[in-house]
Amino acid sequence: MSTTVAFIGLGAMGYRMAVHLPKHFDTVYVWNRNFEKAKQHATEYGTTAVEISQAVQADIIFSCLPTSLDVENLIQDLEIKSGAIWVDCTSGVPESARKLASTLAQNNVQFLDAPVSGQTIGAENATLTFMVGGQKDAFDQALPAMQALGKLIKHVGDSGAGFAVKAVNNMMMAVHLCAAAEGFTTLKAHGVNLNEALDCINASSGKSGVTESVLPQRVFNRSFPLTFALPLLAKDTGIAVDLVREAKLSTPVISLTQNLINIANSLAEPESDFSSAVKMYESWSKITLD
Amino acid sequence: MSTTVAFIGLGAMGYRMAVHLPKHFDTVYVWNRNFEKAKQHATEYGTTAVEISQAVQADIIFSCLPTSLDVENLIQDLEIKSGAIWVDCTSGVPESARKLASTLAQNNVQFLDAPVSGQTIGAENATLTFMVGGQKDAFDQALPAMQALGKLIKHVGDSGAGFAVKAVNNMMMAVHLCAAAEGFTTLKAHGVNLNEALDCINASSGKSGVTESVLPQRVFNRSFPLTFALPLLAKDTGIAVDLVREAKLSTPVISLTQNLINIANSLAEPESDFSSAVKMYESWSKITLD
Amino acid sequence: MSTTVAFIGLGAMGYRMAVHLPKHFDTVYVWNRNFEKAKQHATEYGTTAVEISQAVQADIIFSCLPTSLDVENLIQDLEIKSGAIWVDCTSGVPESARKLASTLAQNNVQFLDAPVSGQTIGAENATLTFMVGGQKDAFDQALPAMQALGKLIKHVGDSGAGFAVKAVNNMMMAVHLCAAAEGFTTLKAHGVNLNEALDCINASSGKSGVTESVLPQRVFNRSFPLTFALPLLAKDTGIAVDLVREAKLSTPVISLTQNLINIANSLAEPESDFSSAVKMYESWSKITLD
Amino acid sequence: MSTTVAFIGLGAMGYRMAVHLPKHFDTVYVWNRNFEKAKQHATEYGTTAVEISQAVQADIIFSCLPTSLDVENLIQDLEIKSGAIWVDCTSGVPESARKLASTLAQNNVQFLDAPVSGQTIGAENATLTFMVGGQKDAFDQALPAMQALGKLIKHVGDSGAGFAVKAVNNMMMAVHLCAAAEGFTTLKAHGVNLNEALDCINASSGKSGVTESVLPQRVFNRSFPLTFALPLLAKDTGIAVDLVREAKLSTPVISLTQNLINIANSLAEPESDFSSAVKMYESWSKITLD
Repeated sequence: MSTTVAFIGLGAMGYRMAVHLPKHFDTVYVWNRNFEKAKQHATEYGTTAVEISQAVQADIIFSCLPTSLDVENLIQDLEIKSGAIWVDCTSGVPESARKLASTLAQNNVQFLDAPVSGQTIGAENATLTFMVGGQKDAFDQALPAMQALGKLIKHVGDSGAGFAVKAVNNMMMAVHLCAAAEGFTTLKAHGVNLNEALDCINASSGKSGVTESVLPQRVFNRSFPLTFALPLLAKDTGIAVDLVREAKLSTPVISLTQNLINIANSLAEPESDFSSAVKMYESWSKITLD
Repeated sequence: MSTTVAFIGLGAMGYRMAVHLPKHFDTVYVWNRNFEKAKQHATEYGTTAVEISQAVQADIIFSCLPTSLDVENLIQDLEIKSGAIWVDCTSGVPESARKLASTLAQNNVQFLDAPVSGQTIGAENATLTFMVGGQKDAFDQALPAMQALGKLIKHVGDSGAGFAVKAVNNMMMAVHLCAAAEGFTTLKAHGVNLNEALDCINASSGKSGVTESVLPQRVFNRSFPLTFALPLLAKDTGIAVDLVREAKLSTPVISLTQNLINIANSLAEPESDFSSAVKMYESWSKITLD
Repeated sequence: MSTTVAFIGLGAMGYRMAVHLPKHFDTVYVWNRNFEKAKQHATEYGTTAVEISQAVQADIIFSCLPTSLDVENLIQDLEIKSGAIWVDCTSGVPESARKLASTLAQNNVQFLDAPVSGQTIGAENATLTFMVGGQKDAFDQALPAMQALGKLIKHVGDSGAGFAVKAVNNMMMAVHLCAAAEGFTTLKAHGVNLNEALDCINASSGKSGVTESVLPQRVFNRSFPLTFALPLLAKDTGIAVDLVREAKLSTPVISLTQNLINIANSLAEPESDFSSAVKMYESWSKITLD
Repeated sequence: MSTTVAFIGLGAMGYRMAVHLPKHFDTVYVWNRNFEKAKQHATEYGTTAVEISQAVQADIIFSCLPTSLDVENLIQDLEIKSGAIWVDCTSGVPESARKLASTLAQNNVQFLDAPVSGQTIGAENATLTFMVGGQKDAFDQALPAMQALGKLIKHVGDSGAGFAVKAVNNMMMAVHLCAAAEGFTTLKAHGVNLNEALDCINASSGKSGVTESVLPQRVFNRSFPLTFALPLLAKDTGIAVDLVREAKLSTPVISLTQNLINIANSLAEPESDFSSAVKMYESWSKITLD
């Protein structure tokens, strides 16, 4: 008997991710709150637009929603197929993952927190990275479906571990962004040629994903394209500091950065890309990073 | 008439760098305070060990010493050949570069601050990165000699700009190191598998030179090999915050990190590699990053 | 009909506070987990040691326990007299106060979060400060009983407001402690006479409760008497940053200080007074504040 | 033979300070760059307006200028009376004090760095605090003249120690200001009555000069009167971090605060009082401290 798969939440990521599923599975349900999008997806890509109640009768159920709260609200009214595995690709809250995993287990449904990285381009090319928390056997069962959408797929620990890795990844990116803004402002204040300096640093120990991609593609060219909104980065850095608090750790750089991203967010235009956090530094120094 | 070249300071970097010069230049002088090392280099690699007074009669004079102060002390008593170009590969102080450039110019000698990155392996393979400050014409004249030792060679600005880029590079690396220590401690406290998490982050937006190289090669395997001493990183982060102060900028993350590296250095064993700064975090959390 | 009063929790503070109640009220119940202490209090001060079930039949019920969790655990099994007012002097969690106030209201019991400051000496002299959150009419009814124990008694807002003020007070004290440790270490490093400097600062704009009391009475004389334990200060700074997170504010200095107190606590001997946080700074600088 | 005294620099502080000297000394010279002010002072208060060359023939020479650089520029062209004592009340740079002390000593002139606190009201009432660095015998000789202007007069160490204490005092005040802004913003976000909370904190361990004076007199009433300009506080916090750097110390809270005051200064209206640094926090939180 063949595996049926569902994808719930056809936003910028989900819409592109679900495209790949019909290549590997005979039955692929899609559902979206705005149902027109689901019907369009079915027309374009050969998926099947169904009611949510039917979608959750699939063997593997993907979801990709804005926040863990959205996932919780959705799930609480559903009767999910016994034996199903729910693969939640939201960038969510570890504590929520543990709660959902425990609740769903009572109905013989397994929950994996499986956030992804790689942005829309990775979704299009099925080259996403999956960082997955939850039961290992559920991970193994869901692996073929995740492999249809991604390249690097890792089981990183128990329930919540996937969300934790994503939050920490984004927090580290936020730290690197602040470091880059501060460092390059300093160089420009001293008359250094920023493009040449960037080439040197990208060939040296001080490089990061931010210096390799964000600075040249978003900041130096002043494009700041909205692909990952600053409020979402603020949310993720908040999740990271909550993990720190829960474990009673001391993380001065993370704590400071969470404050800085929060400040940048409070000062930013609505619909700002995360990279526009550097504008906060520019307003302080009157130095533009271009 | 052929160009003569000299290399002053045959430490871990200089000794390996000077090896490549005889392949490109007929006359290569070497000098070292402990002169036995210069004689050994001459025997092994076909360079010519000479007195310092003769070394500074070369057309291109490289130096690679521990600090700018060492360079200043050495230079003040020398009569350098008129028309020579001094290429200082020390990780030095921008203000010192400006001072030396101005002083030496009075004797028709040009000074380039030309720190390198790439570590001893890059010196051995002549794949170093040079970030160079000073007069563009002097840079152009010295370029062939630097190309004998490195791969990416960039003129980043006026006197001091090279040292500034190196200091900021190292400062950014220090920030990334703290972020990585804090982030991975948090993940371990929550039961996440660190190796799997590292793979995910290195495929995602949160990666850095530290997560790609330092964590797997120095920290997770507990080797902490001494290739770049923690006190030197503390010195470099100090140079970076002095640049910030001079320009009256606001750089909260850089300032905090300079303090943290300073604390780590004050608590570390002598002869500690820079990567052992993570042990400070481990002493706070009682969590070992392995 | 005369008002009956109870005091639950006869620790260092509670034991001294309950002493004053018999001067103002005919019937004063006392209860303590270790009941011998209650009996001793009754013998010494004319209170009445009773079972907890009887204590909560008083009109005004004071409690003073280590944490809000202790209060919650105690209360959940009790049948409290309808119409009673519970005055909780614990340094507790605002969210817990709101929860208890709401729960107890269902049984017609009013809950006031009423933490105190002034230490044991203030308890002895009935000169404590009460910062009180909750219903204004409950505050007014409980006021005479609080006046028996304190001097300045303020209604600062709704449920949780009292705990919030206490947490912020202690957080500000923690910031002042770090500032003093850093500032005086700097002065000593520069050969300044600390006692003379302290006199000057205490007559100037840089003074604080820390410079006026903590430095001269606990640090400079190296006594560090245990009257307020460092782990409790760490707990309180944690409550303060949780308030910050809840309100989505940006507070860089508070966040950093919470980390520093947490670090100091992780490194400190058990049973350390809060003032011994300065020893963390001393271990970094090798400079002793005496 | 009676002592002659001079006062150089009749700004807001100096003008009020010099008023008291004629009560204690027969001959009191005054000088000011804008000489009309000196003549007006002579007319009003019985001092003698003289050329700068004559002023520096006094036995005790007070100065009160904006910065150490102004003092250095003034002094370098003067022929000061041999045996004179120069008492500099500027909030200056410790290194400059050491340099001036050493230079002037060659001409048998002693230099005391003697900054004051107490603001214009303290100058008017001769109740200033003097924190004095330099030779003890010079301090003893100048003591009667300082006693004419102040109340608490302390010899805190060698040359530079007075300036160091002033810089650290102002830095601590800056930390307390940030702590107060952050703490009270947090309380207001949680609906706490700020005036009642302030009363409680001022009776508790979290109090400071800022909570006792700055918040009620400058912030809560929204007056922000310009008596000590924000750029001067930014300058003083800079002097403090330079002291930290010089001594190679680790002071995370001081370093962060210097950045925050610098940011506040970069965003502030010209002619802003130091207390308006809280407006930076208000712009982040959209919460007004009133």
